[in-house]
Amino acid sequence: MPSASVPDQSSLLPTIRRPSDLRSLSQDQLRRLSSEIRSFLIEEVSRTGGHLGPNLGVVELTLAAHRVFDSPAEPIVFDTGHQGYVHKIVTGRADRFHTLKQRGGLSGYPSRAESEHDWVENSHASTSLSYAAGLAKAKLVRGERGSVLAVIGDGALTGGMAWEALNNIAADDKLPLVILVNDNGRSYTPTVGGLAVHLAGLRTNPRYEQILEVIRRNLVRVPGVGGTAYDLLHGIKIGLKDVLAPQGMFSDLGLKYVGPIDGHDVAAVETALQQAKQFGGPVLVHCLTQKGRGFPAAENNEEDQFHQVGRIDSTTGEPLSTGGPDSWTDVFSREIVKLAATDPRIVGITAAMLYPTGLHRFAKTFPDRVFDVGIAEQHAVTSAAGLAMGGLHPVFAVYSTFLNRAFDQVLLDVALHRCGVTFVLDRSGVTGTDGPSHNGMWDMSILQVVPGLQLAAPRDATRLREALAHAVTVDDAPTVIRYSKEKVPADLPAVDQVGGVDILRRTESPRVLIIGYGDFAGLALKAADLLAAQGIGVTVADPVWALPVNPALIDLARDHELVITVEDNGVVGGCGSRLAQELRQRDVYTPLREFGVEQRFLDHGSRAEVLEEVGLTPQRIARFAVEAIARADQNAAQPSNIH
Amino acid sequence: MPSASVPDQSSLLPTIRRPSDLRSLSQDQLRRLSSEIRSFLIEEVSRTGGHLGPNLGVVELTLAAHRVFDSPAEPIVFDTGHQGYVHKIVTGRADRFHTLKQRGGLSGYPSRAESEHDWVENSHASTSLSYAAGLAKAKLVRGERGSVLAVIGDGALTGGMAWEALNNIAADDKLPLVILVNDNGRSYTPTVGGLAVHLAGLRTNPRYEQILEVIRRNLVRVPGVGGTAYDLLHGIKIGLKDVLAPQGMFSDLGLKYVGPIDGHDVAAVETALQQAKQFGGPVLVHCLTQKGRGFPAAENNEEDQFHQVGRIDSTTGEPLSTGGPDSWTDVFSREIVKLAATDPRIVGITAAMLYPTGLHRFAKTFPDRVFDVGIAEQHAVTSAAGLAMGGLHPVFAVYSTFLNRAFDQVLLDVALHRCGVTFVLDRSGVTGTDGPSHNGMWDMSILQVVPGLQLAAPRDATRLREALAHAVTVDDAPTVIRYSKEKVPADLPAVDQVGGVDILRRTESPRVLIIGYGDFAGLALKAADLLAAQGIGVTVADPVWALPVNPALIDLARDHELVITVEDNGVVGGCGSRLAQELRQRDVYTPLREFGVEQRFLDHGSRAEVLEEVGLTPQRIARFAVEAIARADQNAAQPSNIH
Repeated sequence: MPSASVPDQSSLLPTIRRPSDLRSLSQDQLRRLSSEIRSFLIEEVSRTGGHLGPNLGVVELTLAAHRVFDSPAEPIVFDTGHQGYVHKIVTGRADRFHTLKQRGGLSGYPSRAESEHDWVENSHASTSLSYAAGLAKAKLVRGERGSVLAVIGDGALTGGMAWEALNNIAADDKLPLVILVNDNGRSYTPTVGGLAVHLAGLRTNPRYEQILEVIRRNLVRVPGVGGTAYDLLHGIKIGLKDVLAPQGMFSDLGLKYVGPIDGHDVAAVETALQQAKQFGGPVLVHCLTQKGRGFPAAENNEEDQFHQVGRIDSTTGEPLSTGGPDSWTDVFSREIVKLAATDPRIVGITAAMLYPTGLHRFAKTFPDRVFDVGIAEQHAVTSAAGLAMGGLHPVFAVYSTFLNRAFDQVLLDVALHRCGVTFVLDRSGVTGTDGPSHNGMWDMSILQVVPGLQLAAPRDATRLREALAHAVTVDDAPTVIRYSKEKVPADLPAVDQVGGVDILRRTESPRVLIIGYGDFAGLALKAADLLAAQGIGVTVADPVWALPVNPALIDLARDHELVITVEDNGVVGGCGSRLAQELRQRDVYTPLREFGVEQRFLDHGSRAEVLEEVGLTPQRIARFAVEAIARADQNAAQPSNIH
Repeated sequence: MPSASVPDQSSLLPTIRRPSDLRSLSQDQLRRLSSEIRSFLIEEVSRTGGHLGPNLGVVELTLAAHRVFDSPAEPIVFDTGHQGYVHKIVTGRADRFHTLKQRGGLSGYPSRAESEHDWVENSHASTSLSYAAGLAKAKLVRGERGSVLAVIGDGALTGGMAWEALNNIAADDKLPLVILVNDNGRSYTPTVGGLAVHLAGLRTNPRYEQILEVIRRNLVRVPGVGGTAYDLLHGIKIGLKDVLAPQGMFSDLGLKYVGPIDGHDVAAVETALQQAKQFGGPVLVHCLTQKGRGFPAAENNEEDQFHQVGRIDSTTGEPLSTGGPDSWTDVFSREIVKLAATDPRIVGITAAMLYPTGLHRFAKTFPDRVFDVGIAEQHAVTSAAGLAMGGLHPVFAVYSTFLNRAFDQVLLDVALHRCGVTFVLDRSGVTGTDGPSHNGMWDMSILQVVPGLQLAAPRDATRLREALAHAVTVDDAPTVIRYSKEKVPADLPAVDQVGGVDILRRTESPRVLIIGYGDFAGLALKAADLLAAQGIGVTVADPVWALPVNPALIDLARDHELVITVEDNGVVGGCGSRLAQELRQRDVYTPLREFGVEQRFLDHGSRAEVLEEVGLTPQRIARFAVEAIARADQNAAQPSNIH
């Protein structure tokens, strides 16, 4: 071989700029490349933070996928895009990895703005099969050639959407679609449920070795990747079951099944994908992988702290910084255990996020009273309704953005049935670095239409504890407590209370009322300082329970000349909008201006950067108020309109 | 037997006032009772309208369920409660059937206000397993005895929630839960997907006859219902698979499977349920039934017009009145075919409601371009995103209330990806007779938070056609068109246009601006008449595209003294609230009052009755405006505040 085009032994990675660069590599080179990519990932993600474990597990299968599928003409759709780092590396983005998840840098998920190889940016689980089914169907309808690959983890298969898609895909026997199941036996934490047991059964099937042997033999027979493994293919066509596949539910559904395959053997994965692609209908390829492969600290971590890491030491895996003890999550984590100790009706629910939501302490203390339902928010909510009907008080701890998956269930299954279920929404508001689909900026808007629902946005640890203690006593309506991913601010005690609304500050002759929801109470206080410094009287209030609107806020609004609301939520239809609506309906026409998150999909960046960008700063709020008051003073002599 | 307590041959039904009354009946009497119930249902539902087919199919299995499960202590949860009529009859509500679905009368679904035997009122599909899992889990946690029964159709099993629940239930081997699958091979229309094929496989299993024989033999052996069929039970414990069950995906998941059972044989169903209940863990009992059983017109109807009927002739099944040709559905149904004829990119999607949504015409004309995904709204939406990415323009026709199931998918999978998908929401606003969970009063509120989304509420057929024609050309954002279940009103032509907003009426010196959304434009015009009659100048406007807010509305609002919005949607966070928000943000302080549906769960009643009750009448709107204007005239000399 001409040495000019052959890289030296230690640097294959820099030669891979696009997927086609992979196709000329030998199996030996692919092994070396895999190893280089692993080192690269550990090094880079240790510095930037990001999803390490999932990506270490998909190195070989991503290489195989890109050798078999002609991306982007043949779309590769990654479920929960956090397993897309290797894909990013082989599609020309390795040199930007040091900017991962930073403002203006690489997204932590696939991003259509970054690359034509990124078809979907979904970071909510279980969507890939539906996207891929649509893409494949479009090929059929338009008479286009080629195939589509969906890469989905065993955890994401526990989500209901995946089932809906499988049910449809299996019945569409011309669909040019390959489903690669990346089965590592754990999504965030070990995968739960009947499916997990079934997959484990397939995994340990005694025919496994024999199957691998068949693949190996065929590999020998078919030297080129493009060649047709006639025997095997023929086997698929007469029914894979008899040649390769063990019995299983996928076959029962009518889906062709190939597996299990060693997901760390590029050649084996490649052969299976090649055959599946050539079959001409939907095929499921079952690959076994090891999450965190090649990074011992991750491989051995039962608690899965390495699913997503902050900055860590790349050798030991130790976190370089911990935000733990002073997080909202931690306050909740400890308090719910205390409450559960005295109230046996309290039970906990998580959708595959025991540790990230802080429910692990509860689970350790009361193992029979915490239920992990898998990535299944809908079931989490409706089974919570059932638990409540059965006399318990369930607490579903979930990231705000994921509750959107179960809006209908909150509305009809919980609220219509007046069930006492408490939803604890972590990561609400702007989360920042994980990009648009992880911001929890929707909950206060969509939940306010739910009749009877009560929502608290505590401003500090004391208020969180109080709100939680109250919520678990409400047995005839859904209660919601939401907090951000920020550190908990120091306690902000009230200087007064008016009808249950905390007054955090009140100057002489207040003209402006600023209502700060949640930890934006601090932002409200800072804005108030700026106003007070300019001689404008101001009151800062926090109702803690933002929904329904506390009537005391109506009275407060009536007594001021301007109301400003500040919320860490989309501005459209948020708490400010709701308060304005309540004011109108009571014929209170004090002008109100709501400050919230711009109603658009926000690019990733740190939380502080994003808040600055959308204008959620004390300066901007104060400026608005100063100008409005000045205008009012000018207009004071003009005739009134309809009020 | 003492003749006094034995009813005569023709009237068993009146003696059944509670479930325990069923337990003393002989098999022969049960057969007679079944027949009486069928006649009763056909007679009653023909008069009142309601779900006939599903209930004719569940007569025997409902009787068996109530003989085995001690309701209400052992909850029986019906999925999609429209199969609950027989349950209502045997729990003491037969004498109120003539009031079915009428205001103050029996609900068309289970209703906790009606009976302690009704645990859940869910009329959205696929929820029963989650409710039941929660109820059963609560029994375990609280150490209570007894079991829970979920009754679910094969159609509802195609919904993702059912999968999430199955996955969890299967892994919880102590859960006192029996799942009765009512398999009629069709939910609304024939059930689709791999699961349907699998069920069909189980149904036609050659061992079926042999299994029935085993059950029959055991019945003979065990005379009393309460007796223990030791042999069979033992069989279940060592693994039902080998004794009774054919291979199947339920067993693969780890769920005990009994079936298939003849669902019209009370004794067979009873034995199976008894065994399942005594097993002490989750068991799935697979019953085969015939939808519309005993009513030939329904049994033979492929298009499933008898799933839910208006008033029909009880002999021929002919509708006594048709609302078809002048419905919104019909206008859509015809127009989408026309559009699709000239635009090959248009494809249709339905979630098991081809006929009710009017997509059947499209499907007949272009059979390869309409996809029925089963009761799977999430997959419908995300696969639509995939289809759009693949170069097509999908139109998902769905009842408004069911889109709530896929809010997250609309937000992230469609809108974030800027996919051109059109959602056609039928039955939006107040639907009335089907009760709280069928009202489509949420869509304009929750969809307004979706960045980029455009929503039209056409006021008449011409506007619907225009809006649809525009929507299918929007290829970079979700478009939504919503209409009610009402008849389409006669065309209401515009007298003028201002920046794309239709002016429907304008008197001299208008002071009040009334904005009527959708077919409430007619309501707005009637209110305007009342105002004009009192000498108050008025403008009536209709933007047709309600979201995002048309800037021309801002200018119009600025030029009036009072703005009134009227929408067939929950008042909280609806179009009126959104307009008010936009006005504030542009410093337009014309007072605005929104009229919409009260934000609570509405009892069933006719649409007209419900609208009257929530005050959506021309009289109430006019009265508000007259009073507000009078107040304004009185206050005209008073000093202004901050505006």
